[in-house]
Amino acid sequence: MPLLTRITGPRDLDRLSLEELDQLAGEIRTFLVDAVSKTGGHLGPNLGVVELTIALHRVFESPKDKVLWDTGHQSYVHKLLTGRQDFSRLKMKGGLSGYPSQAESEHDVIENSHASTVLGWADGIAKANQLLERDSHVVAVIGDGALTGGMAWEALNNIAEAKDRPLVIVVNDNERSYAPTIGGLANHLATLRTTDGYERFLARTKDILDRTPVVGKPLFDTLHGAKKGLKDFIAPQGMFEDLGLKYVGPIDGHDIEALESALARAKRFGGPVIVHCLTEKGRGYQPALQDEADRFHAVGKIHPDTGLPIATSGADWTSVFGEEMVRLGEERADIVAITAAMLQPVGLDKFAKRFPDRVYDVGIAEQHGAVSAAGLAHAGVHPVFAVYATFLNRAFDQVLMDVALHKCGVTFVLDRAGVTGTDGASHNGMWDMSILQVVPGLRLAAPRDADQVRAQLREAVAVEDAPTVVRFSKGAVGPAVPAVGRVGGMDVLREPGTDRPDVLLVSVGALAPMCLEVASLLDRQGISTTVVDPRWVKPVDEAMAPLAERHRVVVTVEDNSRVGGVGSAIAQALRDAGVDVPLRDFGIPPRFLDHASRAEVLAEIGLTAPDIARQVTGLVSQLDGLTHSRLRTDGAAQAEPARD
Amino acid sequence: MPLLTRITGPRDLDRLSLEELDQLAGEIRTFLVDAVSKTGGHLGPNLGVVELTIALHRVFESPKDKVLWDTGHQSYVHKLLTGRQDFSRLKMKGGLSGYPSQAESEHDVIENSHASTVLGWADGIAKANQLLERDSHVVAVIGDGALTGGMAWEALNNIAEAKDRPLVIVVNDNERSYAPTIGGLANHLATLRTTDGYERFLARTKDILDRTPVVGKPLFDTLHGAKKGLKDFIAPQGMFEDLGLKYVGPIDGHDIEALESALARAKRFGGPVIVHCLTEKGRGYQPALQDEADRFHAVGKIHPDTGLPIATSGADWTSVFGEEMVRLGEERADIVAITAAMLQPVGLDKFAKRFPDRVYDVGIAEQHGAVSAAGLAHAGVHPVFAVYATFLNRAFDQVLMDVALHKCGVTFVLDRAGVTGTDGASHNGMWDMSILQVVPGLRLAAPRDADQVRAQLREAVAVEDAPTVVRFSKGAVGPAVPAVGRVGGMDVLREPGTDRPDVLLVSVGALAPMCLEVASLLDRQGISTTVVDPRWVKPVDEAMAPLAERHRVVVTVEDNSRVGGVGSAIAQALRDAGVDVPLRDFGIPPRFLDHASRAEVLAEIGLTAPDIARQVTGLVSQLDGLTHSRLRTDGAAQAEPARD
Repeated sequence: MPLLTRITGPRDLDRLSLEELDQLAGEIRTFLVDAVSKTGGHLGPNLGVVELTIALHRVFESPKDKVLWDTGHQSYVHKLLTGRQDFSRLKMKGGLSGYPSQAESEHDVIENSHASTVLGWADGIAKANQLLERDSHVVAVIGDGALTGGMAWEALNNIAEAKDRPLVIVVNDNERSYAPTIGGLANHLATLRTTDGYERFLARTKDILDRTPVVGKPLFDTLHGAKKGLKDFIAPQGMFEDLGLKYVGPIDGHDIEALESALARAKRFGGPVIVHCLTEKGRGYQPALQDEADRFHAVGKIHPDTGLPIATSGADWTSVFGEEMVRLGEERADIVAITAAMLQPVGLDKFAKRFPDRVYDVGIAEQHGAVSAAGLAHAGVHPVFAVYATFLNRAFDQVLMDVALHKCGVTFVLDRAGVTGTDGASHNGMWDMSILQVVPGLRLAAPRDADQVRAQLREAVAVEDAPTVVRFSKGAVGPAVPAVGRVGGMDVLREPGTDRPDVLLVSVGALAPMCLEVASLLDRQGISTTVVDPRWVKPVDEAMAPLAERHRVVVTVEDNSRVGGVGSAIAQALRDAGVDVPLRDFGIPPRFLDHASRAEVLAEIGLTAPDIARQVTGLVSQLDGLTHSRLRTDGAAQAEPARD
Repeated sequence: MPLLTRITGPRDLDRLSLEELDQLAGEIRTFLVDAVSKTGGHLGPNLGVVELTIALHRVFESPKDKVLWDTGHQSYVHKLLTGRQDFSRLKMKGGLSGYPSQAESEHDVIENSHASTVLGWADGIAKANQLLERDSHVVAVIGDGALTGGMAWEALNNIAEAKDRPLVIVVNDNERSYAPTIGGLANHLATLRTTDGYERFLARTKDILDRTPVVGKPLFDTLHGAKKGLKDFIAPQGMFEDLGLKYVGPIDGHDIEALESALARAKRFGGPVIVHCLTEKGRGYQPALQDEADRFHAVGKIHPDTGLPIATSGADWTSVFGEEMVRLGEERADIVAITAAMLQPVGLDKFAKRFPDRVYDVGIAEQHGAVSAAGLAHAGVHPVFAVYATFLNRAFDQVLMDVALHKCGVTFVLDRAGVTGTDGASHNGMWDMSILQVVPGLRLAAPRDADQVRAQLREAVAVEDAPTVVRFSKGAVGPAVPAVGRVGGMDVLREPGTDRPDVLLVSVGALAPMCLEVASLLDRQGISTTVVDPRWVKPVDEAMAPLAERHRVVVTVEDNSRVGGVGSAIAQALRDAGVDVPLRDFGIPPRFLDHASRAEVLAEIGLTAPDIARQVTGLVSQLDGLTHSRLRTDGAAQAEPARD
């Protein structure tokens, strides 16, 4: 890597010739494949923006100018060019974040990995620049996929309003979000692509690929000659022009010279301008290019030459859901599926293959996923909207005001719920069990194992007059955790072995094995514990209060923010029932969590069996003492701690 | 009203001639002005859609076909034509809802009054119709203002995808949302309007207005002859065509014949089609047309001839905020204001007049309001985003993932928080203090009077590294409620008058006078009560737990969902501090509230001083008994209830 290792910051790019820049692009691709093969990470998106990132940092002066990345998973090249080349602990604790990070670099701004935000950020920064008369540019890089999100539209509509406010929008058009981009916009972008230049771009790309079977070869050695004939140009700009946005493009997103020329022109323009760049996701890496599903959007550890995964995991929560959906689809013709541009990651690919007319990919558009589900349900079918837990935040108002208010039978399946870890703060699914608590009529299930996923999904789709939610974790599903009894609608996972038990331990979802371990640890301290899994955590089971009353203390454990979550709901239910048994609620503290493995994060926030057992032991001892001292205060001293 | 009173359902329209339909339109306008003058309600929007609604119900067969209204405040004419002509109790308890209501009529679908949802609903219903092979049409009426919302874009993108799925979109283009519509889209619509037909439409409109000074005159008696020359036609459809949507228009939205012709063609088309109708908000009512601010969007009781309000209220929460914003603007050049198409209703009109360059109307686009605020704050200014509490739901993800995660100093001012009443379920601001609890770092203030609005707004904008929220009620602000002491950061509103008080009553925001009344009532029962206003309800003040510990019971009262609200947060803070004093939390029960006056709603849900005092009295008696019996169980009987 003779060139890459000499780049310590964007200005080091200024000295390089075009030939050297092409060489640098090749080095970066080799670096990315090598590095990400070892750690896992977002590969395809970064391979697609190598030249674009180089050109951006040549034309704009970061950090004085702000270079903003939408979603942020395509910022690896940006990291490499801004002094961050140690990818050995990518997404691991203490290593580089998988997204931009203000803590890492003054060149980073947006850390939020939820899509379609960048134009709003850029609009805000551009407004401040104008107001403060600051001599600084803003450039926002957004994928064609992210343009399907409503926020992007709201921002475009605002950006187009101010003709004198400089703002450069780079549309990184690879015809894909995670999967191919859907919708009318995608079709329009396709029309824009149908130009002489684009045809040549395609032909040349094919030619290069034919000659570039594996990464590591100098990809662009013959490119420079070929691209001389390709000039960027102003094309009929269609809807962007209708909105009042200057349009430049389409530009070959792998031609650094053309990119620089277009970006420099856009920078000089003095108003809002769109630079439409055509890129290829997975560029230069044959295994990625051959993967039609997602072009190696995000990978685990892989063999760099073949792209084949090194470790294969067992059954995961997602596939358990996905397979049960196919069975449900066979049984009920009225069940349809919805995804927000993530058919495969949420496990709906098998359902889509089996029932292609009954699955709707709405784009990166969670709001539309939810509101169109309300319409579907109103009109007589039962939609199952499968979405990452953290992304449901985008559709909170629609779940509340469209689905719940209208009593629509819609099932939301929340994948990646709880601490997911390595993707950092904005990917943890730690909010859903709190914000959904307020939704009237909504029922929320947190299955603890694969059997419960299947059973509770079935229970959910049987509800036709209210929203239902089934939320589960990321990754491998653990072994079955059998019930040893039933109280109301709740599964008893462990009997206390005494008539006067100390602790009622309420275990939520996938934390059941850990809760059973807590109970074992407490047992060794002479503290008798009932472990119960409510299964449906909203509404609180009517049997909860009577059960709690038979214990000295209630402990709840959930893989969700402890603020307003299941513990809070149970505490309120107990208050309402007049059951004032002390309760302690364990969950995720109310702060944003740095990236690290799930186990590391759980350890850090004290969601481990020893931590919980220790605290519960302390609490019980304290109660013993309290009862003692209180009785004394009341003038009724007893020698031993009372256990009433 | 010889014609209107004979209309009992849409099919009664079939028998009328064009002349009679024009007469009916005149009758409806007279009815609307008369009726809404007496009750208050949405006037301008309904005067604008009289002919459009008639034409829709002539062409489509509701309820087999679904006629859907975005936001729903323009559905009065629809109500009149579908058997609902008793407007005497409009928006009052037991009377007609101000929005569509499934409980009222089989002709109604969407009750949610949050804008931009209709296209998503229509997409869902159209998908279900296709799937179930149902012979039914869907027509969605959306204003140009609502098209600025991201949900509309997400839906358009999806609707355009399916060329064979019938769906009629009527764009009701009056160049306004509440105020004039902003943004690139508005400019594009303006371009579409620049056609021969449109010029004639304008000229004729002006002519008619010159001859129609007051409502009640037969508006259209000379119209029929004039409009013969005006034909609807296919115009260059610009961005809608780019998205792949068939476009018909622009159509004179006050020409029933032209509307019917266009709608009938759209109905036959067999795919998604946009019918672009030009209407005039406040049509036919001179006082409305002369009101440039909002064309009588929504009015209180008015004199029908002059349009002047009958009752003038005193100072309200909104204007207290608005005036303080001007003062803050004078003092700090870095303060800017944001509104989502509601400059005047949220009290920012004075600020905008004083600092026109420092206010941003983002359209009906709460997501963009919040995310662009993050950008503004990141770049060094302090935005104050003033928005109705219920609409902040739309921006939850952005408050969390853009503002809070990036530690941006953005102040959200939530107007119309708590029970607002007459606008029904979706306008009550009863969710914010729950969902915002989970946002790390966010600080939330609930000022109790005008002085506190001013003081807490100032405290809020002084915070530069976290989101702050100031939430207050709708309508008249009550008299000042003085503090008699201070504990930590909390105001003591009433001392208990004893060293061993019974009840700590935590009063949130505008409920302070009621809480003081509760304390007086308790006093008569011999129950001593401290009343404290936390001022900042998030985070819970550190002085809360020690204060609570000195009481026998804690009672919280808030004008917000009791699920996950301030009471829950205080309960958790007490648990965390090991303070297991019983707590009872009063607030809004977790259900959607029917429209009625605020006082009626509060009475119905038990948020009144007598109700709360009664329950607290019962609780204290119970505690007395509990202590008694518990001590007995412990073998330490006492003759009198213990009060430790």
